[in-house]
Amino acid sequence: MNETRQLAEWVAAHRPESIPEEIAHEAKRALLNYLAAAFGGCRHEAVEIAVKTVLPFSGPAVSNLLGRNEKCDPLHATLINGISSHVDDFDDTIPKNYIHPTSPVASALFAYASANPVSGRGFLHAFVLGFEVTSRVGNVVYPWHYETGWHITATAGVFGASAAIGKVRGLTAEKMIWALGLAATQSAGVRETFGSMAKAMHPGRAGQNGYFSALLAENGFTSGEHSIEGSRGFAFVQSANRDLSRLLNQLGERYELRDNTYKPFPTGIVIQPAIEACIQIHREQHPDPALIKAVNLEVAPIVFELCMKKHLKVGLEGKFSIYHAVAIGLVRGRASLDEFTDASVIDPALMRIRDLTIPHSNSEIADDEVMVEVTMNDGTRIHKHVEHAVGNIGRPMTDVQLEEKFRDLASRVIAPARIEQIIEKCWAFERLPDCRELVELTIPVRALQ
Amino acid sequence: MNETRQLAEWVAAHRPESIPEEIAHEAKRALLNYLAAAFGGCRHEAVEIAVKTVLPFSGPAVSNLLGRNEKCDPLHATLINGISSHVDDFDDTIPKNYIHPTSPVASALFAYASANPVSGRGFLHAFVLGFEVTSRVGNVVYPWHYETGWHITATAGVFGASAAIGKVRGLTAEKMIWALGLAATQSAGVRETFGSMAKAMHPGRAGQNGYFSALLAENGFTSGEHSIEGSRGFAFVQSANRDLSRLLNQLGERYELRDNTYKPFPTGIVIQPAIEACIQIHREQHPDPALIKAVNLEVAPIVFELCMKKHLKVGLEGKFSIYHAVAIGLVRGRASLDEFTDASVIDPALMRIRDLTIPHSNSEIADDEVMVEVTMNDGTRIHKHVEHAVGNIGRPMTDVQLEEKFRDLASRVIAPARIEQIIEKCWAFERLPDCRELVELTIPVRALQ
Repeated sequence: MNETRQLAEWVAAHRPESIPEEIAHEAKRALLNYLAAAFGGCRHEAVEIAVKTVLPFSGPAVSNLLGRNEKCDPLHATLINGISSHVDDFDDTIPKNYIHPTSPVASALFAYASANPVSGRGFLHAFVLGFEVTSRVGNVVYPWHYETGWHITATAGVFGASAAIGKVRGLTAEKMIWALGLAATQSAGVRETFGSMAKAMHPGRAGQNGYFSALLAENGFTSGEHSIEGSRGFAFVQSANRDLSRLLNQLGERYELRDNTYKPFPTGIVIQPAIEACIQIHREQHPDPALIKAVNLEVAPIVFELCMKKHLKVGLEGKFSIYHAVAIGLVRGRASLDEFTDASVIDPALMRIRDLTIPHSNSEIADDEVMVEVTMNDGTRIHKHVEHAVGNIGRPMTDVQLEEKFRDLASRVIAPARIEQIIEKCWAFERLPDCRELVELTIPVRALQ
Repeated sequence: MNETRQLAEWVAAHRPESIPEEIAHEAKRALLNYLAAAFGGCRHEAVEIAVKTVLPFSGPAVSNLLGRNEKCDPLHATLINGISSHVDDFDDTIPKNYIHPTSPVASALFAYASANPVSGRGFLHAFVLGFEVTSRVGNVVYPWHYETGWHITATAGVFGASAAIGKVRGLTAEKMIWALGLAATQSAGVRETFGSMAKAMHPGRAGQNGYFSALLAENGFTSGEHSIEGSRGFAFVQSANRDLSRLLNQLGERYELRDNTYKPFPTGIVIQPAIEACIQIHREQHPDPALIKAVNLEVAPIVFELCMKKHLKVGLEGKFSIYHAVAIGLVRGRASLDEFTDASVIDPALMRIRDLTIPHSNSEIADDEVMVEVTMNDGTRIHKHVEHAVGNIGRPMTDVQLEEKFRDLASRVIAPARIEQIIEKCWAFERLPDCRELVELTIPVRALQ
C-alpha cells in the first residue's frame, strides 16, 4: 500500500512531451474558460471583501490578481484568484465526480507565474498534472465523500495544487510525497456553506494551501508517507468508502482532462437545457414576450429536486430557478451574468414569464434534455426539443463558443484588443516564453504598454 | 436547530466579569504552560523550516514570534507560535477529549496581541472563550471523530481561534456565526501525519485559519448559519456520530478549563507514572545506576499497546518508550527535553538500564499508576508505588511545579531575570495594561530596555 508514493513518483518523473496533443488542447480550453470565469467574478462582492481582508497581511506584492489592479503575495493571490474564478459557478466541471478542478490548480499557478518566470510549456505541464491529481484523488472517494457533505472541489483540489506547484518547483518524488501529505492534512470545505460566500473561498483556499504545502515540503517539512491510502489518511478519514485503485489506474494512459466540461450559462447545471431551448426559440422565432400566454416544459425529475424556486428576491436565486431560466431565454435571448443580478430577478418582463411557466417532471427526460412548448395569445404554439444541452460531455462547447464566453466576460474588465491577445496566447500557451505576459494582460489598466 | 447561533450569541454577549475566579486562575496556568511549551519548541527544526518558508510571504512584520528574533505578520506568527508550542508534545491536554486546546487559541491571541493593543483582561477573556468553544465543539464529536483519524486539536481548535479573535475584535453575534462557519469549512488535520512535522503544524494552522475567519467575517464575508449542526456541517460531515447537546449544556455555568491538565514530562502520557516513580527513587534513595541489576515494573495494559519501543535510534522514539522512561528517571533523575535528543537515546548508561528493564502488563494497574521494583547487585530491593501520576486530573501540577517547568524550558532561550518577570506577569495577567510587554519579554535579545 504505497499509492501516495506511486502518484508522487509519477508526477515528479513526468515529462511534458508525454502529454498527448488533444490533452494539451483540452488544457488550453480549460485555462481559457478559467480566465473567462475569473473575469466574470473578479469584481464580485466576495472578492472585494477578501481583497480588503488580505491586503493588510500581504507579503511583498509580486503577484497580480487576475482582472484586478491590486497586487499581493502569491499565496494570497491564489486565494483571490480562486474566489474570482468560482464565485459565479461558471468554472469547469467533471460530470463524473462533480469537481471543478481548474480553479484550485490554475489559481495557484497563475499566482505563482505572476511572481516567478515560468514558460507556457512548464505552466501547461504543471496544470495537466495538477488537474490529473485533483480528479484522481476525487475519483477515489466519489460519490461517498461528496454525499457526506464535502465540497470535493476543495478537498481534492488541495492535492492538485500541491502537485502543480511542486512540479514547477521541481520537487523530488520524496518531497512530492510530503507536499501531498501536507495537502491531505489541510483538506477541508463543507457543503453546509453553499449559498454563501464561503463556497467561493473553498477552491481559493485549497489552491493556497496546496501551494504552501509544496513550499514547506521543498524546504524539508515532513509529513506522513501514506496521506491518501493510510488508515488515518484522506481516503479513510474523509470518506465512508473508497476505491484506491482509481488513483493509479491507467495513469499516464488516460488523462482526466478528457472528462472536463464547460458551462455556457452561469447557473445550476440541470436548468441549462431549458435556457438553451428558450434562447433558440427567441433567436429562431423571436416571439414577442408580451404576447406569450403560457409556457409548458417537460424536464428531468432532478429539476424538481433542485431548481423550483419561483419567487425570487436576490440574483443568486435565479441561478437555481427553472422559471427564471425560461424567462431569460424567451425575453432576453441570453443568459450571462447580467441575467442573475438582483435587478434582473425583479424585472417585470421576466416576472411575467416566470408566472406563466409550468414545468412538468418527466422521468423519460434525461438530465441534459428538455421539451418546451410556448403558447401565444393567438393560439400559436412553438415547440423546441433539446436532446443534449451544450456543455454536456456528449456535446461539448466548441472552441469558438468558449471564445464567445470569454469575450462576454472579459469585456466587462478589459479592452477588446487585450481580449483577443489573451485568446491568442491561450491557444499558443506552450509557446509563451514567460506566462507573466499573459497574467499582465488581465489587468484593467495598461501595465504592459 | 440553531446551536451555532446560540454559541455565537453567547460568545458575543459574554462579559469578562462573568468568569469565575478559579477559571481565570486556570486560564493563567494554561497560558504559563503554553509559554513554557513554546520556549521548549521554538528552536525545533520544524519551526526553523516553517519560519524560513513563511518569511518571504510575510506581510508587514508587526508580530513577534514567541521565543524568536524574527517578526512577521500576525497570521503567519500564529502558525509559527502554534508549531513551537505543540512540536514537543508538551502542551496541555483535556483528558476527556484529548484536545490540546491552548495551542491554537493562544497562538492566535499572542500573535494578535503582539500587533494590536490588547489588555490582559481582554486577552484572558478571549482566551477563556476560545478554549471553551474548542473543547465544546470537540465534545460534540468525541470519541467518534477522533477515532476516525482526525486530529481533534486542529479540527476543533480552528473554531476556538475564530471565537477568540472574533471576541477581541468585538464581532456581533451575526458576524460571530460567520466566523464560526468560515472556521468550520477550514476544519482539517488527520492523524496519518503523526510522527512527522505536519502534526505540529496542525494547531498553528488551526489558529491561523480561525484568526483569518474572524477577520473575513468582520468585513462581511458570509458563511452558512448552521456550520456545526447543519446536515452538511461539521458535526455530521466530520463525525460518524455526535451529541449536539454537549455544545451548549451548562454553557456559562461549567467551564471547560476545569478539565485541563499539564504534563510534567514531554512524553506520551501513559509512561509518565513510570518516569515519576523512577525520579522519586533517584531523588530519595539515589541508587548508583551502575549497580542496578534489574528493574521490574507493573504497568497498565495501555503501555503495552503504545510504548514498548526498546531499541531506540532517534530522540523522538524515547517519548514513547517505557524502557527509556525508567532509564532516564533512574540515571538522570529528570525528564526534560534533553532526555529525548538523538544523543540521549544512545547514551550507554541509559541503554544499559533499558536493557535490564522488564515491564509487566497488569490490568489492575490504572492508566496513571505504576509499581516499580529496582533490584541492586547486592540483592537490595527498592519499591515505589505511584498511585496517581502528577499531571493527572486528580493530581494536577501545582502552580509551583508549573513555574519549575516554565523555568526549565524558558532558560534555554531567555535570561533568568526575564523568566521571573514573565511568571509574575502571567499570574497578574488581568492587570496587564497591554499584552505586548509580555510578548516582548519572550524575545531572546533585549527588545524593551
